[in-house]
Amino acid sequence: MSGLPAGDGEFALIERHFTRRSRSPDVVLGVGDDGAIVRPTPGHETVYTVDMLVEGRHFLPGTNPERLGHKALAVNLSDLAAMGATPRFALVAGALPDADPQWLAAFARGLFALADAEHVDVIGGDTTRGPRNLCLTLIGEVPAGAALTRAGARDGDDVWVSGSLGDAMLGLAVLEGRTRVASAALAALVARLEAPTPRVALGTALRGIASAAIDVSDGLVGDLGHVAQRSGVRIGVDVGAIPRAAALDAKLGGSERALALQCLVAGGDDYELAFTAPSALRAEVAALAGVVGVPLTRIGDVEAGNGVVLHEHGAPLADVPRAFDHFAG
Amino acid sequence: MSGLPAGDGEFALIERHFTRRSRSPDVVLGVGDDGAIVRPTPGHETVYTVDMLVEGRHFLPGTNPERLGHKALAVNLSDLAAMGATPRFALVAGALPDADPQWLAAFARGLFALADAEHVDVIGGDTTRGPRNLCLTLIGEVPAGAALTRAGARDGDDVWVSGSLGDAMLGLAVLEGRTRVASAALAALVARLEAPTPRVALGTALRGIASAAIDVSDGLVGDLGHVAQRSGVRIGVDVGAIPRAAALDAKLGGSERALALQCLVAGGDDYELAFTAPSALRAEVAALAGVVGVPLTRIGDVEAGNGVVLHEHGAPLADVPRAFDHFAG
Repeated sequence: MSGLPAGDGEFALIERHFTRRSRSPDVVLGVGDDGAIVRPTPGHETVYTVDMLVEGRHFLPGTNPERLGHKALAVNLSDLAAMGATPRFALVAGALPDADPQWLAAFARGLFALADAEHVDVIGGDTTRGPRNLCLTLIGEVPAGAALTRAGARDGDDVWVSGSLGDAMLGLAVLEGRTRVASAALAALVARLEAPTPRVALGTALRGIASAAIDVSDGLVGDLGHVAQRSGVRIGVDVGAIPRAAALDAKLGGSERALALQCLVAGGDDYELAFTAPSALRAEVAALAGVVGVPLTRIGDVEAGNGVVLHEHGAPLADVPRAFDHFAG
Repeated sequence: MSGLPAGDGEFALIERHFTRRSRSPDVVLGVGDDGAIVRPTPGHETVYTVDMLVEGRHFLPGTNPERLGHKALAVNLSDLAAMGATPRFALVAGALPDADPQWLAAFARGLFALADAEHVDVIGGDTTRGPRNLCLTLIGEVPAGAALTRAGARDGDDVWVSGSLGDAMLGLAVLEGRTRVASAALAALVARLEAPTPRVALGTALRGIASAAIDVSDGLVGDLGHVAQRSGVRIGVDVGAIPRAAALDAKLGGSERALALQCLVAGGDDYELAFTAPSALRAEVAALAGVVGVPLTRIGDVEAGNGVVLHEHGAPLADVPRAFDHFAG
């Protein structure tokens, strides 16, 4: 944003990929000054989220740059969705080992395709040479008081999740040679891993319906653990009810049950929304699935207490992955 | 913000260092959810800036972490100052090679000391393992229409700069063994390099007075070149008038003139403000220096044309550093 550090002259070409005329009339000044200026919507609150993605940690070296551009934006859009916020603006900062124009063009293509689809204006950023690292800040808006948080779950609420869980982690396990699936199934799993779909429309539709929400980025049990802690409740989850891909379901009944269970309750990177809602609104939630075009599945209940407790159709779950024992109440 | 990526459990301790109760009543929700929520000030526009600092590029390995915490925030505050914005909120993202509690405590100490002094609330962030990289997003506010930009300089305006220029680059040259200064002078130069003072109060005071502004982060000629380009004007600078430390001034008349000239017109990292203002407001600008406690020096004029032209008390400058020839009009 402050221009490019001395010696980064060759990185000036990067700005070409990220400089576009902003489409929203609320952007007073976009890329190209010391800062960007926007006009906030009266009566709304502003929601901020930032995620840093490091090569070798959050994505593999050699990851398709177009998918990476998509994913870097998607993971932040997912955070805004979990807050019930309408995405508005993005700041894109990145360190890159070199200014490879083909890589950059592909990354920008993936980023802007999703930005355009979700009406997000990229209003600024910063680029420099360094070990590959992408840091996106997303700015959303929500009518004052209408944001969803982790803190509103109440005894008697239902627990819901969108889409299916475990796909991304199962895809990663296949890529790492730890298991196998049919090649037709693999493409879908890897697409979920590399190009997740943030549930933006669902997030805004849940305003006034959901009592608490979070995006499933670190694994269902851990993420619901945050909701339980912030809300001061216990959350019971029926593992048998968690929606999953057929490839994962097949493993759940067989010799790879441990891996399948781990994908389901501890798999990160799916970027689905988990949320709670009063049971009196069960029909409204079910109807939303059709409106936003995303399956919604009721997977549990909120009770008094603390922590997250897993069961399988009511029976205690003996073989819950050990690493997640401490989340149990 | 979205919690910590799977496997970053040991980084949870980092959050302890960056989690504080927000002081502004405009922070609806701070650290600890999928996003932060703030209430924008009615009648104001929001100003955004982001800077990514990479170890080995923007700061030396082994840099004092307390000073680094200060500087990471200072460089962004400097961008907001150049826009005339009042700083409000910060998002702090960082990749760290390890979760060294002493390093983190010192970094947080430096960051929060400056944040407190400038009334900035840290409302969110993200931490992960990786090559050391700090990415700060700063959020400021300005009354609608009152922001300073690079685009407003007009034929006949004066050109001003705050503080002194070249200190940081001269300090770096000494640290790198390329020149020497008295040890008493060195401490001041290195403090300017490692812990610059953003001109926040000056920036807001320049609203309604300055016609254009920029922070001197990449070197005076390059930065004024951005103003000349965006404003569609030529900027003439009297190198003899540029304010400088005594240690730099001494070299300007001697055998190290080339180095001194380069520090003066091309030294980055000083984080002073360069700005233009109508000559009719010369007395108002001069009076501001006393109000905000920062020296302000008139160093040039805005003319019709394009580019930046250097002279020394009216005489052409024969020995301008070659790398900056292309900025000349």
